[in-house]
Amino acid sequence: MIIHLKSSVTAEAAATLATQSNAFHVISEGVNVLILGSGVKEVPAALENYTDNSWVFPNDMQLASRKYRKETRTVKIGNVEIGGDTHNTILIGGPCSVESEEQIRQSSELLVGLGLTTLRGGCYKPRTSPYSFQGLGLEGLKLLAKMREEYGLSVITEARDATHIHEIIEYTDVIQVGAKAMYDQGILRACAKINKPVLIKRGFGTTVQEFVQAAEFVLSGGNENVILCERGLRTFETATRFTLDLCGVAWLKEYTNLPVILDPSHAMGYAYGVPSLSKACVAMGVDGLLIEVHPDPSVAKSDASQQLNHQEFTELLGQLRAVAASVGYKIV
Amino acid sequence: MIIHLKSSVTAEAAATLATQSNAFHVISEGVNVLILGSGVKEVPAALENYTDNSWVFPNDMQLASRKYRKETRTVKIGNVEIGGDTHNTILIGGPCSVESEEQIRQSSELLVGLGLTTLRGGCYKPRTSPYSFQGLGLEGLKLLAKMREEYGLSVITEARDATHIHEIIEYTDVIQVGAKAMYDQGILRACAKINKPVLIKRGFGTTVQEFVQAAEFVLSGGNENVILCERGLRTFETATRFTLDLCGVAWLKEYTNLPVILDPSHAMGYAYGVPSLSKACVAMGVDGLLIEVHPDPSVAKSDASQQLNHQEFTELLGQLRAVAASVGYKIV
Amino acid sequence: MIIHLKSSVTAEAAATLATQSNAFHVISEGVNVLILGSGVKEVPAALENYTDNSWVFPNDMQLASRKYRKETRTVKIGNVEIGGDTHNTILIGGPCSVESEEQIRQSSELLVGLGLTTLRGGCYKPRTSPYSFQGLGLEGLKLLAKMREEYGLSVITEARDATHIHEIIEYTDVIQVGAKAMYDQGILRACAKINKPVLIKRGFGTTVQEFVQAAEFVLSGGNENVILCERGLRTFETATRFTLDLCGVAWLKEYTNLPVILDPSHAMGYAYGVPSLSKACVAMGVDGLLIEVHPDPSVAKSDASQQLNHQEFTELLGQLRAVAASVGYKIV
Amino acid sequence: MIIHLKSSVTAEAAATLATQSNAFHVISEGVNVLILGSGVKEVPAALENYTDNSWVFPNDMQLASRKYRKETRTVKIGNVEIGGDTHNTILIGGPCSVESEEQIRQSSELLVGLGLTTLRGGCYKPRTSPYSFQGLGLEGLKLLAKMREEYGLSVITEARDATHIHEIIEYTDVIQVGAKAMYDQGILRACAKINKPVLIKRGFGTTVQEFVQAAEFVLSGGNENVILCERGLRTFETATRFTLDLCGVAWLKEYTNLPVILDPSHAMGYAYGVPSLSKACVAMGVDGLLIEVHPDPSVAKSDASQQLNHQEFTELLGQLRAVAASVGYKIV
Repeated sequence: MIIHLKSSVTAEAAATLATQSNAFHVISEGVNVLILGSGVKEVPAALENYTDNSWVFPNDMQLASRKYRKETRTVKIGNVEIGGDTHNTILIGGPCSVESEEQIRQSSELLVGLGLTTLRGGCYKPRTSPYSFQGLGLEGLKLLAKMREEYGLSVITEARDATHIHEIIEYTDVIQVGAKAMYDQGILRACAKINKPVLIKRGFGTTVQEFVQAAEFVLSGGNENVILCERGLRTFETATRFTLDLCGVAWLKEYTNLPVILDPSHAMGYAYGVPSLSKACVAMGVDGLLIEVHPDPSVAKSDASQQLNHQEFTELLGQLRAVAASVGYKIV
Repeated sequence: MIIHLKSSVTAEAAATLATQSNAFHVISEGVNVLILGSGVKEVPAALENYTDNSWVFPNDMQLASRKYRKETRTVKIGNVEIGGDTHNTILIGGPCSVESEEQIRQSSELLVGLGLTTLRGGCYKPRTSPYSFQGLGLEGLKLLAKMREEYGLSVITEARDATHIHEIIEYTDVIQVGAKAMYDQGILRACAKINKPVLIKRGFGTTVQEFVQAAEFVLSGGNENVILCERGLRTFETATRFTLDLCGVAWLKEYTNLPVILDPSHAMGYAYGVPSLSKACVAMGVDGLLIEVHPDPSVAKSDASQQLNHQEFTELLGQLRAVAASVGYKIV
Repeated sequence: MIIHLKSSVTAEAAATLATQSNAFHVISEGVNVLILGSGVKEVPAALENYTDNSWVFPNDMQLASRKYRKETRTVKIGNVEIGGDTHNTILIGGPCSVESEEQIRQSSELLVGLGLTTLRGGCYKPRTSPYSFQGLGLEGLKLLAKMREEYGLSVITEARDATHIHEIIEYTDVIQVGAKAMYDQGILRACAKINKPVLIKRGFGTTVQEFVQAAEFVLSGGNENVILCERGLRTFETATRFTLDLCGVAWLKEYTNLPVILDPSHAMGYAYGVPSLSKACVAMGVDGLLIEVHPDPSVAKSDASQQLNHQEFTELLGQLRAVAASVGYKIV
Repeated sequence: MIIHLKSSVTAEAAATLATQSNAFHVISEGVNVLILGSGVKEVPAALENYTDNSWVFPNDMQLASRKYRKETRTVKIGNVEIGGDTHNTILIGGPCSVESEEQIRQSSELLVGLGLTTLRGGCYKPRTSPYSFQGLGLEGLKLLAKMREEYGLSVITEARDATHIHEIIEYTDVIQVGAKAMYDQGILRACAKINKPVLIKRGFGTTVQEFVQAAEFVLSGGNENVILCERGLRTFETATRFTLDLCGVAWLKEYTNLPVILDPSHAMGYAYGVPSLSKACVAMGVDGLLIEVHPDPSVAKSDASQQLNHQEFTELLGQLRAVAASVGYKIV
């Protein structure tokens, strides 16, 4: 249950009420908001006098539900807004891993040259084997920060686990919670205390319900800048790396108020399919795409098979602009 | 292995060679073609003198492989062609089940009014319970045939099992092999002996490899008019009915030479998601869509939740035309 | 809803009532039984006067439900009974495919020598490729019948599709409905009209609910001799061929009144795992096992990797007898 | 590749070689062991002179592979050993969550009374919603430690994320890495530096290959006391909570040298199926079971439906002892 307290209740009083009611307390657009478990179906007697408005829910998708907020939330990445009534589809590009200054600089120049604004690149890679390339870590974060400074790009990178989440928060503009880290409360709770946008990737074995509940960890801690990212389910089909769940995306757009970004590169796992999947995503009117692009995919230290080269990426952008226009959206 | 025999070999001689080599024999565009298992990696000695050209394959996707025929095959449905270099996306509409003459007439008039050409409607419903509505059977087939006669529409309906496949073949223009019947050799082998187009739906637990091999049953029997249809996988995600596998579609378009049609209605299971999924499919440049539309979905005898009403369908068509145009395709 | 009619109602009258009520009519243990859809929650007015007892159900698992019949049904295979209070676990052995008289004779002698009673062997193989070995067909059925005559064994083989179901019914003691044919109403409805035991394998993409509903097609037609067979789900895990669903078996044993047999050979796909899985199944107190055994697995024409040789099978039998005894069961 | 260095190489020299070769270095049974990526197929020239023995592998399952160590590793939990040639199956019992001193004391007394040695109980619950009971945290850990002191039980509890892994390591005898935390390198790398046993649960969307690679993170850091735990996959079947993958267990036992423990409670999700599944697991000859038992399951704060009560647990133990004996094992 979500309760909007009356404007006469101070933030301090609201915090006290929250503690007494075992509720979360956030302040959103000047309103003191209490969030109780969805099992609570009636305003508790102790809160009745202070309640201005309340919402009940069938399950723990509450702050993220369209039943609570009908409009998609607006999230700002650098100077670009997505969600709300912007009809913007942000195209975030960059390599799977930050590998060197030269490499990430080439990626940055590609994006800037194409009029794009946001650079991705992994620094702490969530590899499944200890014997694979694990990413440049802090050194990679510093390279991303340098690119931001030099090129004016926003940067996004992934937190692999809670041990380096504070570094990630310090150095990046958007914190990515990876698919394998999506249940990591150490990460989620740290992201709940900041105001930077948080992009949560859906686990490949995660239901949409659980996915949205991960967002609730961040929202209920006071950070409203949450973006959902679908990147493919693990199914019995192994001819492709994962199975991009666009039915799930349709569900997310129907029932949640959060912007949704898609990652066709990881879903497909092979560059040949990325362009047509990207067009499919854009035609749905999603809020953004994450696409892996590398100056020379054949020598990439991770995910070599799924990264586009610069020419492929450039051509794709032109096609995506046409598809976006056909559904009333704009690639930014 | 596929072998093209020399033009000097007569059809009778080719048939004899096929029998001797335990091979399939088809005549395609005037060429005598033998098909052996993919385990055969060299032209057998007994065939060497008669062989004009040959292809080896890593697995039993042979006639359907782009390694054999680089171009997508063209299939004609009524007066409409898909595949090849047509850049046509056929929109096939109609109710889940044929329920009455009045209902199927309304559907027919909707399609004709919108300039569409092909009507779907189930007569033998592959219900999972004996206690559900099982379809009108032969009576339904006759209603479909009547619509064809009166409105000039092509009609497509599903064979549930081999006991009525000959009725289906007699009454319809396109034979649909349902997702649950996809392994049914009684159906597939009957379809192999005719020339009408056969639309094979992918089983919800079927890999793309097995899916294409089902097409090989039809192709190796001599019927080249095969269309593949993706309609969603059964995954752990149950918030939607199935999970439409567009990664798999990208694979099919890369590796096979068969037209691919998509069925977003069954994949999604809920009307709210059908428009955005349909746009996604069209943006990929697929060869067609199957969309369920019913004069009054709320009273439909099957799949009530996923059928669009006439207004929704009409609006969607306009949007699909715009998306198709943005990728160089045309809705027919 | 299931209705037991009063004993004063004749079979003819019951049949008439069934037609009027759009219900199935079967006679079970001398009682006229009507079965209506599970949506019916109250005895229809027209049937009230004839009703002796009635059961309502939350879904279309009705005749197979323990809510209707508390005890597991007894099914007789040759002279052996399973289910009921027999505490018998039948061990059905034999090759994947009947390949030759010599081969199937060796299998028969193995079974007879070990005191076992039932022989399996595929004749119509549901291969996913037209280029694989498809089975001996009718010739294989005749070999199975010969083995029954000579060795007194019961035989079980699989119907691939409806075109040869009547041959299967004629030649075998137990009709196996294969995993890929499980939704085939042509097969199920033919099996509903006979009295021979029908073993239905669960599709690898089939929920337990749908699985039991397939049994309802047979039960509602009047054949009470239905056995369920779990043989593995298709999941993302491909290190083994399928994933044997023993959680699902626990559910079947809790909620249905049908005997349950398991097929660890197909689930595992590799001989090394068959013994330990077989022991697991027996320890659950299941009603039977299907295990593939071949005189020389290395030359088998299908499923070579998963078949045990005679020595492995013999050793396993000894271990299974010990495990069965530890849970109060007996291998038969 | 794994390399055993000659005994003449000191630990310091080995460490230097490891750094130079970008290899992991551990000392196992007095031998200096270097581990390189599995892509390395020949002993590097720089190491040739120091190499005593070497093993190559087709993939990154190296230290855990039976190709490296043929025998199952022995792991000691308190005074009990599992694995090796012990033929012990450890039965670990206790509630889903530690809820109060009284509750966990009742569980402890149950175990001690039954001659069991190891107590489980969650303190940091990996709930998917922020609005659910999250566990007692450190207070729970202290209660577990108290039980160890008073009853001589070993205790095991789960690390939810890396923020509290050091508390878990301090307070418990076996560190459990939960299914949702299985990819968490913050946890795995912390566990790699200690000598306490680490039980890693397989993620519900994780392949056996990836599962074993998680163990490689711990093994390659020098902690050899790793136990694998299968607890069910997330599949399309939702009638049960998860699908226990015993085929996968057969694979783990065939290809890895690590003890394997099973968790039928979480897999099934319902108490009714836990006894028969537990018997199945024991009959496979696994190294242990984790079973949830609660003084009063109906009031449990988490997973109420799947916990056995004390009487059910006691009865089950008797049955498990019989099954274990039938396969030459002993419940400890």
